[in-house]
Order: sequence, then C-alpha cells, then structure tokens
Amino acid sequence: MKTYLECIPCFFEQALRAGRIATADEKLLKHLLDELGLMLKNIPLESTPPETGRLIYRMVRNVTGNPDPFRELKRQSTQQALDLYPSLKKIMDESSDSLLTAIRIAIAGNVIDFGASAAFNIDTEIKKALEKNFAICDYSAFRSYLARSKQILYIGDNAGETVFDRLLIEQMNKPVIYAVRETPVINDATFDDAIQAGIGRVATIVSSGTDAPGAVLSTCSPKFRQLLGQSEFVIAKGQGNYEGLSDESHAVFCLLKVKCKIMADNIGVMKGDIVLKGINI
Amino acid sequence: MKTYLECIPCFFEQALRAGRIATADEKLLKHLLDELGLMLKNIPLESTPPETGRLIYRMVRNVTGNPDPFRELKRQSTQQALDLYPSLKKIMDESSDSLLTAIRIAIAGNVIDFGASAAFNIDTEIKKALEKNFAICDYSAFRSYLARSKQILYIGDNAGETVFDRLLIEQMNKPVIYAVRETPVINDATFDDAIQAGIGRVATIVSSGTDAPGAVLSTCSPKFRQLLGQSEFVIAKGQGNYEGLSDESHAVFCLLKVKCKIMADNIGVMKGDIVLKGINI
Repeated sequence: MKTYLECIPCFFEQALRAGRIATADEKLLKHLLDELGLMLKNIPLESTPPETGRLIYRMVRNVTGNPDPFRELKRQSTQQALDLYPSLKKIMDESSDSLLTAIRIAIAGNVIDFGASAAFNIDTEIKKALEKNFAICDYSAFRSYLARSKQILYIGDNAGETVFDRLLIEQMNKPVIYAVRETPVINDATFDDAIQAGIGRVATIVSSGTDAPGAVLSTCSPKFRQLLGQSEFVIAKGQGNYEGLSDESHAVFCLLKVKCKIMADNIGVMKGDIVLKGINI
Repeated sequence: MKTYLECIPCFFEQALRAGRIATADEKLLKHLLDELGLMLKNIPLESTPPETGRLIYRMVRNVTGNPDPFRELKRQSTQQALDLYPSLKKIMDESSDSLLTAIRIAIAGNVIDFGASAAFNIDTEIKKALEKNFAICDYSAFRSYLARSKQILYIGDNAGETVFDRLLIEQMNKPVIYAVRETPVINDATFDDAIQAGIGRVATIVSSGTDAPGAVLSTCSPKFRQLLGQSEFVIAKGQGNYEGLSDESHAVFCLLKVKCKIMADNIGVMKGDIVLKGINI
C-alpha cells in the first residue's frame, strides 16, 4: 500500500507518541519532530507506510538514545494476554467453529498496537471482536489453503498479540514458522517477545530480518524472502504487514483490525472493522 | 498560549486540509507538507499556535497559488447563519436572560471553523450550545464590564460566526468596534465577510491588521494595538484569539468552544466545552 498524504500528520503523531515513551525531554522531542520534518521531502508517496515507520522509529531510537522504548510495555502486554489465554482457549474449544473463533481471537489481539493508538482495553476489544461481523471474510479460501498446505508461514505483528496467535497456531495443528521482527520497533514482537508468549512451544520462530514495523520485503533478509517465496500458505497479521505485502505478488491471508480511515478506504471497509482478507489467492 | 508538541501533527493536518480545499494536485500538496517540514525547525515552542498558523496558511496560499481557498465556504457559512438569524433572535428575545442566551449563541457560532475541523453541523451545534452548561462562566464580571464601559472592542473570529456575534452586539446595546482579519486566512472573517453578515449595521468594522488566524499582537497594526490598549471592555471570540491574547496583559473576555485537547488542558476544561473566560480581569 502506498503512502497517502493523510499518513504524514500521522507520522508526526507516531513519532511524538513513541518519543514520549522514550523520553520526557521536551527539547529532545521537538528536535525529533524537526528531524522528521527535514526528512519528509525524502519520503515519496510511492513508498509504503512501514518503510517510513522504519525510518521514524530508527530516528526515535537515535535521538532519544533509547534502543527499545516499548520494552516494558511489550512485556506487560504479553503477560496480560497470557492471563487471558485459558479463558480464550475455553471459548475457542467450546465454540461451534473453533477455527473461525481462533481467527477472531487472533484478530482481536491485533488491538495491542502502540503505533496506531495510545490507549486500548484488551478485554473490551476481545469481547467486541468475538461478536463483530467480518467486513471481509475469505474463510473458505483460508480453510482450503490450510487443508492442502503442509506448513504455514505466520508473520506476527505485536507483542502480546503473539499469545492470541498461539491459539490460532494450536488450532490449525500444522507445522508453523512464526516470523518476528529482527530489531525492536514500536511494540512489534521480536524473538524474545515471541518466546515469552510461548510461541516457541508451538512454532519455529524465525526473524524476518527487518526493523520496519511491517513486512517490507526490500528490508527483509534474503533468507526470509526465500522462505516467503517457498511458502504456499502465508498468514500475515496487522496493518503494517498488509501495507508491506499488499502490492507484492505472493498469496497472503491478512488478519487485521482496521485502525485508520486511510486503510479502511484502501480496502473498502470501515475503521474498526475486522478483516480476513486473502490477497493474490 | 505557547505551542505544545501535540500542536505539530495538527499543523500538518491543518495544512493538508486547507491545501485540499485550494487544490486537488497531490504533488503540490506533498510539496506543501514538505515545505512545512523544512520550516518546522524554525518554529519555537515559545511562539503561539496562530503565529505558526499565519506561516502555514501563507504557505498554502503561495504553494497552491490560491489566495483565498475558503472564499466560497465563507460565503456559504455566512448565508447559512443568516438563515438561522430570525429563529435565534426569537430564542434570545424570549429567554429569561437574553444577554446570557446571546453569549451562548455567539459561542455556538464558533463551531464554524474549518481550521479545527473538516465537518460540522451548525444547526446541531447551536442546539447543543443552547443547552450545555458553561465549563467556565465569568458572566457576572462580563456584566459588570458591560455596565461600566462606554464602548466595546469585539474581536471576531470566523465568517458565519459573525452573524451570531451580531445578535450579541445587538443585545449589548452599546457602541461596538468589530475587529476582523486584514487578509483571508482559513475561514476567518475579513471586512467583506463581516459586511455580508450585517455587522456594518450594528458596529464599526476595523481591521486588526493581521493575517494570522488569531489576535497575535506582534502581527497586528499599531493602530489596532493602540485601540486595544485604550479599550476597557474587550470581547475575543474563538481559540485563535485566546491563544494570541492569553499571555498578554490586557483584560479580555474570551468566548469560545474548546476544540482540542491541548487547549482544554491549558484552561482546565474538557474538549467540546463552552467557555466565557475573563483573562486579566
């Protein structure tokens, strides 16, 4: 997905939000926004939002000197999700369509996103996602890909959300390779976050090689690109991965909650909608 | 009022919103935002938001080549307000405290602001403002200033809102000097807009000399500054005028609807609140 002009004010909001978590020094924060201002002319609208996100969060790390501002928030989110795991597993096991319920839960987990929002309530959002109708639901294609594939490449998104992904991975009951970000960026899951969520028990964790908040292939490792190329069944979580992969040619099932109007307009749904969308399928 | 870091993403939103009204050329709009990005490092947090607004809307005019993007919207807003005038006058005349009702109506008119928002419904907002409690209401001081002053300086804000100001001016029944912006900036009222609203029939219209979207004294004419200095009773409408005048020493009654969280935090109220606040009184 390309960058829209409306993404630009949002870049400044994101930089400020992350910056405020990294430091309380107002002068440093102003300097951060000034630097982003100077960089803006080098950001073409043809690039994807997570490509710019990558530059922004690098800048946040460099200017504030804090290499992982969201570290503690990630740890807390994962713990909070782990606390919910037993009750969600029960809901999944008792539902008439456990796979679809697991998909809903995995999408509900996508609310744990400090890039798109400053505040959210995981409990409330889970309840909403379990009752909400899908705006797009390519479920039968998803089931068909699942039935015929020997292995699944699952591209994760945020820390904490990982616990909900685990439920879906368990439900699918096939070998899964779970891809995380190489470097901390916003609250996106890295290797350590996935381990804390228990992903290591249900999947093989690999790094996508990127420090972008989304699967921007040009920033991923050759090894990951090769893995993607060989994977018949790919699941990608969240907006950042959708934005990175939507104009690529590979078949991908995107599971996400739509968090901004630009994204909603791009895929023809409403902000807040939940989506299971197959691209290139 | 100083500029807060949170004002910076909002500056980009404002530039884009005004830019989109001035032109549909995406490349030009990107260039506009790039130029704002380059300017950002020269905007100190010590300056007031309308000082920056002045530079932004100048930039919108220069980059898009459109000297008055809001011209037609201003004309329409004023006409819409004029259509409401008879029914609002009736409400005012029939109320138990016509002066307070007139103040409410004048504040309700402050919703007509294309700087703070892209969309609003004048009818709905009027109804809300007539029923809403004031978050701050220095009404007794207002009445006392009104009773003892021979003349009123009334600093206007947006076109259309001017019609609602006219009701308050009529109700106060004292000689009024009504100050407008010198140059078109957003949908702020200029001389022509005030004339269309019928202000010329109830007050003497003067220019404040500024092209900022607020009474930033350093950008106003010496004549206006002198007028302000000599005026015992000053009414200022809207956020921009509050932001420009709040750190000055002159006594001013600010009538406004609080349109953003930053402003709300600054004066200790909630976003959406209506306020009659005397400063330096």
